[in-house]
Amino acid sequence: MTKKWVYRFDEVSTPDKMLLGGKGANLADMTKHGLPVPPGFTITTEACHAYVAAGNTLTAEMEREIDEAISALEARSGKRLGDATDPLLVSVRSGAPISMPGMMDTVLNLGLNHESVKGLARTTDNPRFAYDSFRRFIQMFSNVVLNIPIHYFERILDDAKNKHQFSGDQAVTAEVWMDVIQSYLDVVRHQTGRPFPMEPRDQLEMAIGAVFSSWNNPRAAVYRKVHQISESLGTAVNVQTMVFGNMGNDSGTGVAFTRNPSTGESELFGEYLINAQGEDVVAGIRTPSAIATLQTEMPAIYDQFVSLCRQLELHYRDVQDIEFTIERGRLYLLQTRNAKRSAQAAVKIAVDLAREGVIDKETALSRLKPEELDQLLHPSIDERVELEVIATGLPASPGAAMGQLVFDADRAEELAHSGTRVLLVRSETTPEDIHGIVAAEGVLTSRGGMTSHAAVVARGMGKPCVCGCDELRIDEEKGLCTVGDTVLREGDMVSIDGGTGRVMLGEIHLVPPTMSDAFETLMIWADEVRSLGVRANADTPEDAEKARSFGAEGIGLCRTEHMFMASDRLPVVQEMILASTHEERRDALERLLPMQRDDFYGILQAMDGCPVTIRLLDPPLHEFLPNLEELVAKQAALRTELSLRETEEVRDALRETSGLLSKVRALHEMNPMLGHRGCRLGLTMPEVYEMQARAVFEATAQLIEEGYQPKPEVMIPLVGHVEELRRMRELVERVCKEVQAVRTLTFQVPIGTMIEVPRAALTADEIAHSADFFSFGTNDLTQTTFGYSRDDAEGKFLHTYVESKVLQANPFATIDVDGVGQLVRIASARGRAEKPKLKLGVCGEHGGDKASISFFHQSGLDYVSCSPYRVPLARLSAAQAAIEDETDEKGGKGAAAQVS
Amino acid sequence: MTKKWVYRFDEVSTPDKMLLGGKGANLADMTKHGLPVPPGFTITTEACHAYVAAGNTLTAEMEREIDEAISALEARSGKRLGDATDPLLVSVRSGAPISMPGMMDTVLNLGLNHESVKGLARTTDNPRFAYDSFRRFIQMFSNVVLNIPIHYFERILDDAKNKHQFSGDQAVTAEVWMDVIQSYLDVVRHQTGRPFPMEPRDQLEMAIGAVFSSWNNPRAAVYRKVHQISESLGTAVNVQTMVFGNMGNDSGTGVAFTRNPSTGESELFGEYLINAQGEDVVAGIRTPSAIATLQTEMPAIYDQFVSLCRQLELHYRDVQDIEFTIERGRLYLLQTRNAKRSAQAAVKIAVDLAREGVIDKETALSRLKPEELDQLLHPSIDERVELEVIATGLPASPGAAMGQLVFDADRAEELAHSGTRVLLVRSETTPEDIHGIVAAEGVLTSRGGMTSHAAVVARGMGKPCVCGCDELRIDEEKGLCTVGDTVLREGDMVSIDGGTGRVMLGEIHLVPPTMSDAFETLMIWADEVRSLGVRANADTPEDAEKARSFGAEGIGLCRTEHMFMASDRLPVVQEMILASTHEERRDALERLLPMQRDDFYGILQAMDGCPVTIRLLDPPLHEFLPNLEELVAKQAALRTELSLRETEEVRDALRETSGLLSKVRALHEMNPMLGHRGCRLGLTMPEVYEMQARAVFEATAQLIEEGYQPKPEVMIPLVGHVEELRRMRELVERVCKEVQAVRTLTFQVPIGTMIEVPRAALTADEIAHSADFFSFGTNDLTQTTFGYSRDDAEGKFLHTYVESKVLQANPFATIDVDGVGQLVRIASARGRAEKPKLKLGVCGEHGGDKASISFFHQSGLDYVSCSPYRVPLARLSAAQAAIEDETDEKGGKGAAAQVS
Repeated sequence: MTKKWVYRFDEVSTPDKMLLGGKGANLADMTKHGLPVPPGFTITTEACHAYVAAGNTLTAEMEREIDEAISALEARSGKRLGDATDPLLVSVRSGAPISMPGMMDTVLNLGLNHESVKGLARTTDNPRFAYDSFRRFIQMFSNVVLNIPIHYFERILDDAKNKHQFSGDQAVTAEVWMDVIQSYLDVVRHQTGRPFPMEPRDQLEMAIGAVFSSWNNPRAAVYRKVHQISESLGTAVNVQTMVFGNMGNDSGTGVAFTRNPSTGESELFGEYLINAQGEDVVAGIRTPSAIATLQTEMPAIYDQFVSLCRQLELHYRDVQDIEFTIERGRLYLLQTRNAKRSAQAAVKIAVDLAREGVIDKETALSRLKPEELDQLLHPSIDERVELEVIATGLPASPGAAMGQLVFDADRAEELAHSGTRVLLVRSETTPEDIHGIVAAEGVLTSRGGMTSHAAVVARGMGKPCVCGCDELRIDEEKGLCTVGDTVLREGDMVSIDGGTGRVMLGEIHLVPPTMSDAFETLMIWADEVRSLGVRANADTPEDAEKARSFGAEGIGLCRTEHMFMASDRLPVVQEMILASTHEERRDALERLLPMQRDDFYGILQAMDGCPVTIRLLDPPLHEFLPNLEELVAKQAALRTELSLRETEEVRDALRETSGLLSKVRALHEMNPMLGHRGCRLGLTMPEVYEMQARAVFEATAQLIEEGYQPKPEVMIPLVGHVEELRRMRELVERVCKEVQAVRTLTFQVPIGTMIEVPRAALTADEIAHSADFFSFGTNDLTQTTFGYSRDDAEGKFLHTYVESKVLQANPFATIDVDGVGQLVRIASARGRAEKPKLKLGVCGEHGGDKASISFFHQSGLDYVSCSPYRVPLARLSAAQAAIEDETDEKGGKGAAAQVS
Repeated sequence: MTKKWVYRFDEVSTPDKMLLGGKGANLADMTKHGLPVPPGFTITTEACHAYVAAGNTLTAEMEREIDEAISALEARSGKRLGDATDPLLVSVRSGAPISMPGMMDTVLNLGLNHESVKGLARTTDNPRFAYDSFRRFIQMFSNVVLNIPIHYFERILDDAKNKHQFSGDQAVTAEVWMDVIQSYLDVVRHQTGRPFPMEPRDQLEMAIGAVFSSWNNPRAAVYRKVHQISESLGTAVNVQTMVFGNMGNDSGTGVAFTRNPSTGESELFGEYLINAQGEDVVAGIRTPSAIATLQTEMPAIYDQFVSLCRQLELHYRDVQDIEFTIERGRLYLLQTRNAKRSAQAAVKIAVDLAREGVIDKETALSRLKPEELDQLLHPSIDERVELEVIATGLPASPGAAMGQLVFDADRAEELAHSGTRVLLVRSETTPEDIHGIVAAEGVLTSRGGMTSHAAVVARGMGKPCVCGCDELRIDEEKGLCTVGDTVLREGDMVSIDGGTGRVMLGEIHLVPPTMSDAFETLMIWADEVRSLGVRANADTPEDAEKARSFGAEGIGLCRTEHMFMASDRLPVVQEMILASTHEERRDALERLLPMQRDDFYGILQAMDGCPVTIRLLDPPLHEFLPNLEELVAKQAALRTELSLRETEEVRDALRETSGLLSKVRALHEMNPMLGHRGCRLGLTMPEVYEMQARAVFEATAQLIEEGYQPKPEVMIPLVGHVEELRRMRELVERVCKEVQAVRTLTFQVPIGTMIEVPRAALTADEIAHSADFFSFGTNDLTQTTFGYSRDDAEGKFLHTYVESKVLQANPFATIDVDGVGQLVRIASARGRAEKPKLKLGVCGEHGGDKASISFFHQSGLDYVSCSPYRVPLARLSAAQAAIEDETDEKGGKGAAAQVS
């Protein structure tokens, strides 16, 4: 069967987003449901691929189908493309399967030329409007299709307005527009060497081609990368009859959300401009009126619109982002799509929709991207500290951000790459600024509303944004901006609060986040659904408490080395390490014992009743010692000094430095990651683990005596051979018995191991003999499975690998299912085959990554453990994994039922 | 069934070495075959375990069975233990399942006391002999059983001889022996606080207990460790009727080998002493006569002995090491065992026995320990250089050794541990010197013959040894020795040639080894049997030639980085690495290209017709740069100097050093083993691999043009993901096509990869898509599978791990079958499933290890590659693996036949 390249909106029965793009599918869907959509047709995403494959050319087949569709449009409207009396005008817009607002090209008013403009002037009885439309078309077409920079046209327009002293575009007369048009056409001829194409069919084909080509323009590529959208989707093209919001004061155009996309409140939210075309709203050039005003200006239209909004929300079962135009008192919907929203709004909307019965809880849970939750747990502004608010704009995307002012997207990227936090300040942003927004902590604009480019894009990325802050006077040329008397220059520190619109001088104080009611509700729903447990990685009572408040069911990884690093312990730790006799070492360990006991007491108390997995000392000992290079430098300096100016002091200092250096050097390692650490320390220096085990058990005993329910679990790191674990288990059990004997208490303490080197995974059946639990240390397991040192790889080649797609993702962020994941599955299967009740968890950073969590759920693990702030993300991800599982199963059952 | 603890020699039907020990089984076997063995019985190795388990006590059951056996002995001989008229005397000797010569204890003449000695004097009519025997017994028993140091007794003996001016032991009269005995008994009473046990049954039980206990003495433990003998074997005890070689000049005792154990020549080889006991020969106190002399001294005995030797060799199908005693003209065999032999002899004997039809070729191949071949390939003395020979001793164990003189075993060990090569010089060695022999390069003694302790032990270890060099006067107290006028002290450099007995002053020049005819023959047999290919690792034409001469069938690993290290290239390599522009880098690479081309030309030429696997650059680039620490020190020194004494020169030097330092620092890595190396370099800096590929292909083209048949294979290191290999393959193939186009030539070059990180093994099916071959880099695979950095592990904890049996072996020496081996099997199976013709090899050091080679054979690999000198070892190991396989199969078939 040959492919069909073109579909009229009214001939589509089941709108397929992949084929028609999001916009095309929506327009067809709305048409099908009788909504007031201007007629038109869609050229498919398949045509996009075919167009590119044919060398950026429309095939004869496509041309034929486009002709047919245009004829149908002409027949339906009674107008003809290019007609000198009653011309049909169309818009040509992109529409990919996944919405990429503003990233690709659009051409409006197509079909105008010297003849048809007269027809338009006649039928509308409005020559000013007709010629304005013509010049808009030329400008847009020239920029989008012919690639002529916009400033050529802006200059001409400015000159014309200055010359005639017009206050704005609206004041320009038809005659002046004709002059402007002539100048525009001269620019085109001069820039391209050819006249502007006046034949409407040529215009149409060129515009369609340009939209297809725009799929591959650089800003679209950046957007796709940021939003992880596949390169292979392609875009469809929608050709639609033009309706005009700029036909006078009974006309207008606007954009509205069925709920507030920033807060999630259930209120119609949007903006419109009277007597304007759509791009005037989106580009943020004129500041529009709030949608509520429409109720008084055009009550009937407003009521119709409210009713349509409700209808659309119920139909799509989600908040809609709607473009509408009013042409001489008649309402048209040009587009509807699921609205982009802030993370805060996403949570509230999902919960509200579920409560309203529009969607079920599972759908509510599935709607959210787990990583969005991260934003909600970012610190917010501490209002108790006085703020120097210098201006207030629109609260376009919530969250607090601070950074050095930058006026240019390239510069923002450059500074951010060098590690500076920047805040991008622009009069208005355009799609060309996308990389600057990615690089910035937040965005501040002086023009444009809540639906302007900056606002939409920032919300999509979860970046704080304040829009339309018109107190700000930006002089981009001079690289400064003024707010009243204050002059700000590049590099000045400024903060914004995207939740209130405030702009503040200097840095701000932040306070830890809390969870909103909707958030809490969502988490409860997630917990109902998920089967995977969620613990946190925490080393202090404070972190443990925070984790618990975010819903952690235990501590999956309590690292004991961080405790060793505390300034009051480090000297004792160093004494212990550098001890030359067993007595000295025992003495230092005895002084460390009460400190460690206090550590464990605090954490076990904070997690009362919940399991706390305590990992015995893991890193190589030299991490606790002075830096080798510094000692080398110091020794060399002292030697030189001694040779030039001998003193007793220098000689003593040199002796001391050399002594320390030789000890540090003896502990130095070529590859510390693979060196003398983990249980290798435990086996060669058992007194250290002994002390730690004693501290755990003494703290446990004390808590039990005080009426608590401590649940410690002891974890042996870096086991590669069962014999290592067997011996360390013996040691820990011995100490446990000793403490229990002294305190005349009995308590059970599970003893397990990290699975973090491939050999442990491969011999998991043997290791399971001596383990009550496995905890996958996926960071180290990734290092050893790939043979990557994370410290070196990320700076030296991993970036290039991901960039150039040697690897699809950074394996330290998202688990490598084929390699590392294979070992996780092998170890789980072999471990459980040997010991069916073996508890399996993950304590690498992957425990806080959605895709990885989904894999761990599928692999049948018992829990993941992640940093406290990622606990909600993990709870949601686990719920989503369970829901996906159920969906798959249902699909599976359904399929099976069909077969039988 | 209760256990039987004691077996008479003549009641054993199938001698079981594990139960009776090697000696016991042999004595029973010889008895069974009618050989003249003095009657006796064996107490089993099981009794040894039971003895230790019972707290070093003989159980009542054992005592009863010993009593019965003694009674049987008494009945057979008509003599009684402790009898005052005709006493039965017995020897009590250890006998483990694996021979450990001299390591455990022996007591002779047991049964003597003040009464029975008179009986002995009477029946032999030789009071001198009887009292000599008694004093020998007291001395030996006191030393072995009562742990009294031997020097107490030696002092008394020396005093007595001096007092009476006896020239030697033989001259001592019965009366003087009686005095000596009295003094001995005083020493015993004084040292132990109790009288010497005079009751023969007590003597017997104590002696048996002492032998059992001696299994665990330190020198036996060291010996077992060196020879990898299991701790759990235990020793048996043999109680045997004494026969006396010291009953006069018609008596004698000796040790003989049925072939020369040093050279392997087929000639009766041994020594004897007239009128002496066995330990006189073994201890090397008197220099014995060569066995050939016996032909003239006692022709009948000699003929009988020669005939018995032949009988024994045919019976045991191996060269025998026989202890014999002639008692008043009657020949007794006290022991026979498979002879220890030098590696050279082992090869010759195995080949000769096979040629004589005594064994088949497979048996000949199986007889040799592959690691012994190593010794044969050690360099030998360059005879063209003049040698300063200062003395000549007996050529006791072949090979050349040089080192600093050391007179003491402890000192030898100490110096060797600090990295000094030492030569151990002793008058004679004793089992207490074993650790010194282990530590030394070679052994030189002034006393003792070819069968003395030093000679036997050194041959067993493959250490060069010169014995009985009586020109040497050793003064251990003063720590010097003299040879004629030359005085040598500790630390003086001396060389020995164990093949000729020469002792030389100073260092000697060595020449590369060649293979003997027997060796060549053996290798040909090995090649007939083995299925596993053997290649060599070689980086230079010289090494390649050597490898070829040893039978390598190709080069399995040609490392290109060693070429980069050559002094004429390093500066260019550094320029290339530190280049700040692409042009600079290309320029340096262009200068490297002809050098690399020459390298490859040379190797491919040397290996004409054989495959040469060339690995592209592997190590991290900073390995080619100046040392970071040194630069840090230099910078610090210059800074200090500048602050104290500012000069233009210092300022310039500091600037330069700081510049270099910052570049070196930028390339520095935390864990270089896991860092930016291997194909990661190839992907981020493709021009380097491009140059190397070009060099390979240009060299290939040139050789083809000159009529050679070069067979290069290009190997991409450190691949972990198929995409890495795919891209590097693309690059190499492109360069290959470019070179072929220019030279108008066509040649095929297989392109493959190392499998050296776990992820590569786990995803071998995918990787096989882009690979023509896999080469297992088992060194790195071991590092990543265990998570061990070899550089750090071996010095820091691996030693302890092996020592304390956390690991059974060093996984870098012998492949870890369970973990690393599992990955090898996974990768082989998945790779071959994807691509059945995929060639599989090993190029880690395990390719030269017998146990590992056996595993690789079983895993179905195509070849191993090892260092040139290990090629013969690998050929033999591969043959043995094939033979074991066949044996297993036969066994398997047999078993299957039984079942059906």
